Amino acid sequence: MPFTSCYLFERLSTPQLERLKSISREQKIQKGQWLFREDQEAEHFYLIKDGAIELLTIVDEKIEIPISMVRPKNGLVGIAALVPPHQYSLSARAAQDSTLLVFDRSDLEDLNHEDPDLVCIIMTNLAQKLLARLKETRQELKIHFMNLVRSVTF
Amino acid sequence: MPFTSCYLFERLSTPQLERLKSISREQKIQKGQWLFREDQEAEHFYLIKDGAIELLTIVDEKIEIPISMVRPKNGLVGIAALVPPHQYSLSARAAQDSTLLVFDRSDLEDLNHEDPDLVCIIMTNLAQKLLARLKETRQELKIHFMNLVRSVTF
Repeated sequence: MPFTSCYLFERLSTPQLERLKSISREQKIQKGQWLFREDQEAEHFYLIKDGAIELLTIVDEKIEIPISMVRPKNGLVGIAALVPPHQYSLSARAAQDSTLLVFDRSDLEDLNHEDPDLVCIIMTNLAQKLLARLKETRQELKIHFMNLVRSVTF
Repeated sequence: MPFTSCYLFERLSTPQLERLKSISREQKIQKGQWLFREDQEAEHFYLIKDGAIELLTIVDEKIEIPISMVRPKNGLVGIAALVPPHQYSLSARAAQDSTLLVFDRSDLEDLNHEDPDLVCIIMTNLAQKLLARLKETRQELKIHFMNLVRSVTF
């Protein structure tokens, strides 16, 4: 059950998890198919139940930069559907035949009227994850910087 | 009035802005003083009313990496107080004599019981800002990559 292991749904109650499950639907996607492309309007986000989705950014028609491979355990793609301006910043393609749980942005917006606390918890979890990613990026910068200093000093 | 220009408080109603103002207090800090240090527990976040605060990361006692200079117009420092694990990831020091509006994390947590919608809007604004920063970082990566490819190709 992917709900309980996804960072986005931490600290939600069992009824809240059930309510979320009720607005999701299953979707299959074959290896090599595109789930979404960068700059498209972000209408959905996806939990990966089975398989693998690769996130990448396209430099030009010949060059792709891989960003990450998202797998079932904590697998979530399409978080741009959760925050304005609701536009995917990466492209997503199935690296294997995969089964996804799809959530529509409009359903989540309806849920916000019904249970604002639920959406508040989700947004806090998302902010936490994003802040952690920024910290990792800065940590990498720091390591590169230290290596640079050492290579100049020694 | 810094409330209305800060990204964190966008989309809040006038009564919600007034409620937030009621839990803030003013604090003055002199040029060169530290506001907080990285890895400290994040108990407060700050709006810059007047002056400038520099965010930086410390590599060792001799080396500091500047991250950004935060100024009154959209100025906010200490967002780690808003998200678990509530730990500052950067250090903050006054670049000029400054006047700040201080918010305590505990007061915001109390507000969450009183008006969950208010905190939900703040967390959505924060997630939006963090996602935008991650996009900028990726955009830079893309530009560096393209320059690298060009330097190899031509």
